[in-house]
Amino acid sequence: MTLLSLLDYGSVLIFALTGALVASRAQLDLVGFAFMASLTAVGGGTVRDVLLDRHPVFWVANPTYILIATSAAVLVFFTAHLVESRYNWLVWLDSFALSIAVAAGAGVALELGQPPMIVVLMGMITGCLGGLMRDVVNDELPLVLKQVQLYVSCAFAGASVAVLASFQDLPEIVVLAACAATCWGLRAGSLLFGWQLPVYKSRPPRN
Amino acid sequence: MTLLSLLDYGSVLIFALTGALVASRAQLDLVGFAFMASLTAVGGGTVRDVLLDRHPVFWVANPTYILIATSAAVLVFFTAHLVESRYNWLVWLDSFALSIAVAAGAGVALELGQPPMIVVLMGMITGCLGGLMRDVVNDELPLVLKQVQLYVSCAFAGASVAVLASFQDLPEIVVLAACAATCWGLRAGSLLFGWQLPVYKSRPPRN
Amino acid sequence: MTLLSLLDYGSVLIFALTGALVASRAQLDLVGFAFMASLTAVGGGTVRDVLLDRHPVFWVANPTYILIATSAAVLVFFTAHLVESRYNWLVWLDSFALSIAVAAGAGVALELGQPPMIVVLMGMITGCLGGLMRDVVNDELPLVLKQVQLYVSCAFAGASVAVLASFQDLPEIVVLAACAATCWGLRAGSLLFGWQLPVYKSRPPRN
Repeated sequence: MTLLSLLDYGSVLIFALTGALVASRAQLDLVGFAFMASLTAVGGGTVRDVLLDRHPVFWVANPTYILIATSAAVLVFFTAHLVESRYNWLVWLDSFALSIAVAAGAGVALELGQPPMIVVLMGMITGCLGGLMRDVVNDELPLVLKQVQLYVSCAFAGASVAVLASFQDLPEIVVLAACAATCWGLRAGSLLFGWQLPVYKSRPPRN
Repeated sequence: MTLLSLLDYGSVLIFALTGALVASRAQLDLVGFAFMASLTAVGGGTVRDVLLDRHPVFWVANPTYILIATSAAVLVFFTAHLVESRYNWLVWLDSFALSIAVAAGAGVALELGQPPMIVVLMGMITGCLGGLMRDVVNDELPLVLKQVQLYVSCAFAGASVAVLASFQDLPEIVVLAACAATCWGLRAGSLLFGWQLPVYKSRPPRN
Repeated sequence: MTLLSLLDYGSVLIFALTGALVASRAQLDLVGFAFMASLTAVGGGTVRDVLLDRHPVFWVANPTYILIATSAAVLVFFTAHLVESRYNWLVWLDSFALSIAVAAGAGVALELGQPPMIVVLMGMITGCLGGLMRDVVNDELPLVLKQVQLYVSCAFAGASVAVLASFQDLPEIVVLAACAATCWGLRAGSLLFGWQLPVYKSRPPRN
C-alpha cells in the first residue's frame, strides 16, 4: 500500500465518523448513517479526481473505501450514545480528517506533477469539500464558513507547506507529514486558544 | 430503444414532475419550473456518468431528455392547481422516479461490468442524487434525510436485488424489474404503513 | 488571448466580487473571502468543463483565474465598507457576471460544435451554477430561485440569441455580444422595472 492510499484510507475513516455523528444528531437510521458517512468520507477526494480527470475515481477503483465508511457508520450508530459531547467529537475528528485529507489531496497533485497553485488548491478541495457536502446536505451553515475560526486557512497553510517542502527534495512522507501537522496545529490552536485571522467588519474603527 | 434508455426516459419524466411540483410550491415562473424539473430529472444520472467517466453524459448525447423534463414542467405549470395535495403527489411521484432511477443506475453499472458494490452504489446515486439536489437548491432538508422513513434504504435494497438477480443469468428486464419493484415496495410500505428501520436514539432504554 | 478566455476572465473577476461580498455579509476572514470568491467565480465553468469532458478544466489548465478571484477577494475585504449598499452591489455585479458567463458558456459549446440545445444549456449552466453554489453553501435561497424576478430566464434568452445568431455566420464577437446584451438587458429590466414572467399561482382567477 502506498503512502497516498494510506492517507486516503485515514481521511475516509475519520471523515466517515464525523458524517455518522451528524447522522446521529439528525436521528437517522443505519442506512442514513452509512449514506452520510460515505458522502462525507469520499466527497472531497471524488471532486479532486473528477477535476484532475483521474479515472476511475479512487473509490470506484477500490470500493474498500466505502466498506470502511460503512463500518464507521455502524460503529457510531451503536456507540454514539456513550460519548459525552457528540459536537466536540465531531469538531475534533473533523480536524484530524481535514489535516489528513489535505495531505492526501496535495500528495496526489504533486505526484501528477501539477504546478504549485493546483497542488495547494487540490489539498484544499480534498480537505474541505467532504465536510462541506455533509453540512450542506444536512441544511446547516458549513463548518468551513463558521466565522471566528480558522478552517479553510488551515487547509491553505498545510497545502502551502507541502508545496514548499516538495521543492527541498525531501522524502514524500516528510513533505506530507509537515503538511498535515501544519494544518492540524492551526486548526487545534483555533479550537483551543481561539486563534483567528481578522474578520471583516462592516465599519472598521476610525484611526 | 434499449431497456436502459427507456428507464432513463421514465425516471427523467417522473423526477421532472417532482421538480416542477417543488417549483410550484416556491411559486416560480415557467423557466424556473423548467430549471428545477431538469435539475431533478438529470442530476442523479449526470453524477453517475461523470463518476463512471461515461462521456458524453446521457443528456449531452441526447438532449431529448431535457425536452421531456421541460414538457413535464409546462404540464405541471398549467395543471398543478387541479390536484388536491401537491405534497402527496410529490412524495408518491418521487417514489416511482426513485425506483426507476435506481434500476437505471444499477443497469448501467452492470452493463459496464462493474463489481457488485459499485453497481449498488451507482443505483443509489442515480436514484437519490437528483431529488437531493432538488431539495438542497430549494433550501430544504432533503427527503433523503427525513427521519422515520425509508428512502436511501429502499434504493440500497433495490440495487442489491439487482446485483443478486444478475448472478442468476436472468434476462436484463427481469433483473431490473425486480430491482425497481423492491425499491418501490419498500418506499410505498414506508409511506403507507410507516415501515422504518430503528433510528438512532441518543439515550437508548436501559435493559 | 482569445475572445472566449477573455469572457472567462471577465466573468471570473465579477463573480469573484459577488462571492466576496457574500463573504463580507457573513463576516468571514480573508481566506474565507478567497474561498467564496473562487467557488463563485469558477463553479459554473467547472461544471461546464466536466460535463463536456473538456480536460484540463479551465482553471486547472491556467491557475491565473484563481489568482484573479483571490485578488478580487482581497480588494473587497479592504473596501467593502466604503460602499453604501452591499446587497445592491451584489445583485448588480451578479447581473454583469451572469451575462458574461452565459456568453462564455455558449461560446465554448459553439466552438465544440455542440447541437443548439446543448449550447443553450451550457450557457445557462455556466451562467447560473457559480452563483447557485455561492448561495447554497451560504445556506440561503439561491438568487436563481427568487420569485418575481427574471434570472434563469435571462440566461435562457441570452443563450438562445447566441444560437440564433450563430446560424447567421456573424463574427464570434457579435454573436457573443448579442448573447450577453440580451441576458443583461432582461435582468436589468427585471431589477429596475420589475419585468417578470407570470408566476405559478396555486389558485388562478376564474374566467
